[in-house]
Amino acid sequence: MPVSDKHRIQTRELDTPPRLLLGPGPSNAHPRVLRALSNRQVGHLDPAFIELMNEVQTLLRYAWQTDNQVTIPVSGTGSAAMEAAVVNTVQPGDSVLVGCNGYFGERMVDMASRYGANVTRMEAPWGTAFDLETIRANMEACRPQVLGLVHAETSTGARQPLDGVRELCDEFDCLLLIDTVTSLGGVELLLDEWGVDAAYSGTQKCLSCPPGLGPLTLGSRVIERLNQRTTKVPNWYLDMSLVGKYWGSERTYHHTAPINMNYALREALRLIAEEGLEARWERHRRNAQLLWDGLAEMGLSCHVDASIRLPSLTTVRVPDGVDPGAVSRTLLSEYNIEIAGGLGELAGKVWRVGLMGFNSRPENVTLLLAALKDVLNR
Amino acid sequence: MPVSDKHRIQTRELDTPPRLLLGPGPSNAHPRVLRALSNRQVGHLDPAFIELMNEVQTLLRYAWQTDNQVTIPVSGTGSAAMEAAVVNTVQPGDSVLVGCNGYFGERMVDMASRYGANVTRMEAPWGTAFDLETIRANMEACRPQVLGLVHAETSTGARQPLDGVRELCDEFDCLLLIDTVTSLGGVELLLDEWGVDAAYSGTQKCLSCPPGLGPLTLGSRVIERLNQRTTKVPNWYLDMSLVGKYWGSERTYHHTAPINMNYALREALRLIAEEGLEARWERHRRNAQLLWDGLAEMGLSCHVDASIRLPSLTTVRVPDGVDPGAVSRTLLSEYNIEIAGGLGELAGKVWRVGLMGFNSRPENVTLLLAALKDVLNR
Repeated sequence: MPVSDKHRIQTRELDTPPRLLLGPGPSNAHPRVLRALSNRQVGHLDPAFIELMNEVQTLLRYAWQTDNQVTIPVSGTGSAAMEAAVVNTVQPGDSVLVGCNGYFGERMVDMASRYGANVTRMEAPWGTAFDLETIRANMEACRPQVLGLVHAETSTGARQPLDGVRELCDEFDCLLLIDTVTSLGGVELLLDEWGVDAAYSGTQKCLSCPPGLGPLTLGSRVIERLNQRTTKVPNWYLDMSLVGKYWGSERTYHHTAPINMNYALREALRLIAEEGLEARWERHRRNAQLLWDGLAEMGLSCHVDASIRLPSLTTVRVPDGVDPGAVSRTLLSEYNIEIAGGLGELAGKVWRVGLMGFNSRPENVTLLLAALKDVLNR
Repeated sequence: MPVSDKHRIQTRELDTPPRLLLGPGPSNAHPRVLRALSNRQVGHLDPAFIELMNEVQTLLRYAWQTDNQVTIPVSGTGSAAMEAAVVNTVQPGDSVLVGCNGYFGERMVDMASRYGANVTRMEAPWGTAFDLETIRANMEACRPQVLGLVHAETSTGARQPLDGVRELCDEFDCLLLIDTVTSLGGVELLLDEWGVDAAYSGTQKCLSCPPGLGPLTLGSRVIERLNQRTTKVPNWYLDMSLVGKYWGSERTYHHTAPINMNYALREALRLIAEEGLEARWERHRRNAQLLWDGLAEMGLSCHVDASIRLPSLTTVRVPDGVDPGAVSRTLLSEYNIEIAGGLGELAGKVWRVGLMGFNSRPENVTLLLAALKDVLNR
């Protein structure tokens, strides 16, 4: 049987441009993380890897400030971790209330609906957050089993305050599920203190690790409910009753973990343990303030109110008469700087600028402000 | 709010043992692949990454010998690609016939059942393959919409011949879905010639790339059926009607692709294009024959008949009175060589020895045979 050479293309050695990634993610990985990534492999059941899995789980608990036993990196990106959080928490027929004030709340609605939940959308303008009264009124109306909120909306740059939400959830006997994709490792997060039942994140934002793993944590209320299920979780790959046995004490084979990505995540989490969470959060705040001050000096305004503005991601309003895409493209082609445009309600209205993890450094702010000034003043 | 240091452990720089991975996977990545893996990042919508995505897709088509437009690396491991193949091919209420002659056939049954299919298990002893008469008899009995077969059973080392299967599928108007996890890049595979409708694989076997991506290809019959669905695919992350738009001409954002893993996969596929498929398949055959001859000289026998024995994975029968786990552990601790034991029906009865991709080299065979001889003669 002849082999066809139709698709046998000859390509050059990889040579990517030296981008500074100041968009909504991925951010640039820390150099130590990239070195760990290419470390020689061991098998996924090797004693050396089992030890590494324990370290990754412990360090994730530190980063999230949780004691949850089930705290693991899902073998997919942040979106897979989001779906894992949803499919293991939500059951068919559940009433689920989701805060829709950005793109990722909408995604949670889509996922929960696919798994047979009766989803109620709690809406607010993109860039704002929900107050307790609004949440209570919505909970009274739909009596949810699960409340889904986005702690750090990557599409808007808004932070959802969580004070008092646990008390509300207790009142309604409701699980609290939150998106921490753009907050983990960069913005104050105290999961157990806040009484969060399920949370997920990605590695490519404030953890400064390449994309490819999705941190997930599930509390005891979720695990209890999962154990009481009478039907299988309708998703084999993300079924935590199976995956949990690989990451738990049994170490039962489920799938082959992304070995090298776990090397990288371990290094990223070590960097957080070395720096310390408070210092890291403070660094993110300080550099964000530098950016905000610089933008104000240039006459540019931020879309989100300062009280709930994320230090990891800033949405900058596009001035009248400026083509946002042209500015982004020029920053990329002339300065090798990546920033992004808006999504959904904010498409064409904002740029999204990320200062995440390793990239949250004063020199990056200085360079971006200078480059932006140059491009806008042409 | 005080931050707790309870989980703030101090760990050393990563220093994994220098393993030679001769089990059922992962195999050792090629050094060029590890170098590409740690290359500096670009964004997932960067023009440089879009170009890379095109190259990866084309080179995957070469490796699989298919013209399928939808040929992509799923952003998860091989198991995620398996679930993607199942969830995008199988619809609730479908009759699905699955060949169960090993662990991964059983997994396909589990997945298809979760998505509401009426699954018929076609059984055979582990280590054998199905002949056309058996497949026909089973198809006549259950009239399947989808036939699932494992081309290369990682749990048994058996190859499923596919000659004549397409003609059977045409007769019954049935889709043909195959598992090529342990054959892609190491064993003859001619997807279009064989009329395969859907196939999936992993990166950590004969492609010699770390685990973390799952190649998937879907033919026009699958896509047509997918487009005619009246309900959403019940899995957001793996819904190819969404993912396909990111990898297709639209480039619509779906999730952040694992950038660095795609660098690595590109390099692994470049190595295949450089070597050429025929030369690569022949190399796998030659080194497997060396292994089989050496085992025979030591009085050890292979579990699978030579006519359907995979060159990428050999199941070696454990001699009477030998503790297979003790042998594997000694090979690991004294020689840094990983091999694996049997699963399911073959647990305790065989060792699994892989000669995959970069690891399919004569010196590895020589070392393994010498080490095994030493350990068995103690």
